[in-house]
Amino acid sequence: MKKIPLLLMGCGGVGRQLLHHIVSCRPLHSKQGIRLRVVGVCDSNSLVLASDVSTKELDDASLMEVCRIKSSGSSLHSLSNFGDCQVFSGQEVVKKAIDIADRFGKSTGLAFVDCSASSKTVEVLNQVADLGCCVVLANKKPLTASLEAYDKLVSHPRRIRHESTVGAGLPVIASLNRMISCGDPIHCIIGSLSGTFGYVMSELENGKPFSKVVNAAKSLGYTEPDPRDDLSGMDVARKGLILARLLGHRLSLENIKIESLYPLEMAPNVLPVEDFLVNGLPLLDKDIQDRITKASSKGKVLRYVCLIENNRCEVGIQELEKDSPLGRLRGSDNLLEIYSRCYREQPLVIQGAGAGNDTTAAGVLADILDFQDLFS
Amino acid sequence: MKKIPLLLMGCGGVGRQLLHHIVSCRPLHSKQGIRLRVVGVCDSNSLVLASDVSTKELDDASLMEVCRIKSSGSSLHSLSNFGDCQVFSGQEVVKKAIDIADRFGKSTGLAFVDCSASSKTVEVLNQVADLGCCVVLANKKPLTASLEAYDKLVSHPRRIRHESTVGAGLPVIASLNRMISCGDPIHCIIGSLSGTFGYVMSELENGKPFSKVVNAAKSLGYTEPDPRDDLSGMDVARKGLILARLLGHRLSLENIKIESLYPLEMAPNVLPVEDFLVNGLPLLDKDIQDRITKASSKGKVLRYVCLIENNRCEVGIQELEKDSPLGRLRGSDNLLEIYSRCYREQPLVIQGAGAGNDTTAAGVLADILDFQDLFS
Repeated sequence: MKKIPLLLMGCGGVGRQLLHHIVSCRPLHSKQGIRLRVVGVCDSNSLVLASDVSTKELDDASLMEVCRIKSSGSSLHSLSNFGDCQVFSGQEVVKKAIDIADRFGKSTGLAFVDCSASSKTVEVLNQVADLGCCVVLANKKPLTASLEAYDKLVSHPRRIRHESTVGAGLPVIASLNRMISCGDPIHCIIGSLSGTFGYVMSELENGKPFSKVVNAAKSLGYTEPDPRDDLSGMDVARKGLILARLLGHRLSLENIKIESLYPLEMAPNVLPVEDFLVNGLPLLDKDIQDRITKASSKGKVLRYVCLIENNRCEVGIQELEKDSPLGRLRGSDNLLEIYSRCYREQPLVIQGAGAGNDTTAAGVLADILDFQDLFS
Repeated sequence: MKKIPLLLMGCGGVGRQLLHHIVSCRPLHSKQGIRLRVVGVCDSNSLVLASDVSTKELDDASLMEVCRIKSSGSSLHSLSNFGDCQVFSGQEVVKKAIDIADRFGKSTGLAFVDCSASSKTVEVLNQVADLGCCVVLANKKPLTASLEAYDKLVSHPRRIRHESTVGAGLPVIASLNRMISCGDPIHCIIGSLSGTFGYVMSELENGKPFSKVVNAAKSLGYTEPDPRDDLSGMDVARKGLILARLLGHRLSLENIKIESLYPLEMAPNVLPVEDFLVNGLPLLDKDIQDRITKASSKGKVLRYVCLIENNRCEVGIQELEKDSPLGRLRGSDNLLEIYSRCYREQPLVIQGAGAGNDTTAAGVLADILDFQDLFS
């Protein structure tokens, strides 16, 4: 039985779903001769460790208890009296995590999994990568920090995976890595990488006003609590930057032209969210309607996309051919068109749900298993 | 520098293109710390080996000479006086290949690559897999032989890859393997897996008669010299079977319901190809036109697809929703819709060119590099 020890950072929706997937896949993985040994789980304040990480793991009952506690909004700290787990808090967490990484890095290896949304994990990740651990990220922040931090993080390319940072579990990064490895040069990627924008642009095309569409998207739970977190384009820009860097472009967030769908005078620090939804948004309806009409008169449609081409990355509304994969896209699916030597006239297209804890965590789990040849 | 020794069977268009890719990727792979060492190349009669496979390889000049000779229609046998290569022929070929596999299997490992279209390689492949070698297939035949042979061939699942057997280089098998590994159960695959049928069904939808469309497809080089080789559906059935078996279905070719687009009385053993094209095809126009009209009256379109669902695999014309990914497909692209727990309502869609030596060979090369963690 091949054993893959694992330490999870982040017990939000994705992290908890990952633990559920690990437990429910036990019979499947056992058939494949694999055992995922979860030796530790952290939230932002605490680390729960198996009593003796070399020989023991957090058993499935403990993992489910972690999920229960975190779903209820409590801290992992409250687990301190649970079974024979060890619980560390505060500054001890990072120290202990690195200690574990050091020990496993020298012996069996360790999958160090970041399902948090924190910008603070990049340093720990760099250290554990250097200590010989495998790193899996669902967290976009460490990959979109400075180029210097990025270079460090990916300096052991066979020991890092981050499928779920773009398009959730859609096989985007894995497919791009295949193309890169076989020397098929990628000239251009254009993609709709946000379910929110996908929904919004579809509904606009159906003739609804922008203000109504954004309010409906919020009611349906398609947006963040403040929809401006989506409409700013920053999340799409992070995804675009991750793809651009994967292609070898030396870019940072500040090099990306990002189109926000609201003006500065409606920014969160100026206008409360309710005001924005009720009074701000309707002021934007006409302008967007005009753009749609103009595009339509040329036989085109508007899509909010990330475009990577000629060493540049742009995020915003583009006029696209109605009769292209992105032009035909409806609803909240993500869709990428990838142009390369092999896919020159007609792109390689990958389309599907690009959000959701289930599929995001599935992508993380597939990444972990993709390391299996490095474990014994 | 990580070295991956490689033995190639098959020097047709895909095999030669693979050798070209390997040579042109030298700088890229060198940067990644990888060296592909081609120690031998076979065609159907001969095997060219480096003079001492442990320390030497066929250098790039020799590989290009292999390509030149094979492009000109000669046998590898004519290389017998080339540099210090060794050339083996006849019954010696398999014996020598297995000897090499045995030697490398016990030491560094070997990537054994089948780019032939032969049904005779399955036994060699089974033996080299058992000897510890990695196997890469672009050849569909070994994977579509008996279930017994299939089970043997995939009995070392981490040491076999066959992306280019379905959809050429499209990341279909890699993506399905990711989904399978993370326990996302695949309920249904429906796909247009033939560029020929893709083109034919699109043109029929544009109102052209079947006989005209098939003749045009032949003139454009989209079909085999005898288009009935495509229209029989057998090639799609092999692809469908490969996907079905990947999902765990215990099926063989004889279990697949295959719809041929010509009747038995127009089969190649009854009607010469010219007769079929000129006199046979027009007799089929009305029936297909009627089916299109009937589908259209229900708001549907016809596609020639492979459908895998409920433990069954069917290949033939299906009526599909106009407004689905397959319904919107035009032209010769392949397209797969994959339905699973994560992609339940809206499928995961992979679309792109599913034929061509360049992309097929690129898929093979990506498969070889995917083994790199098994080499030192």
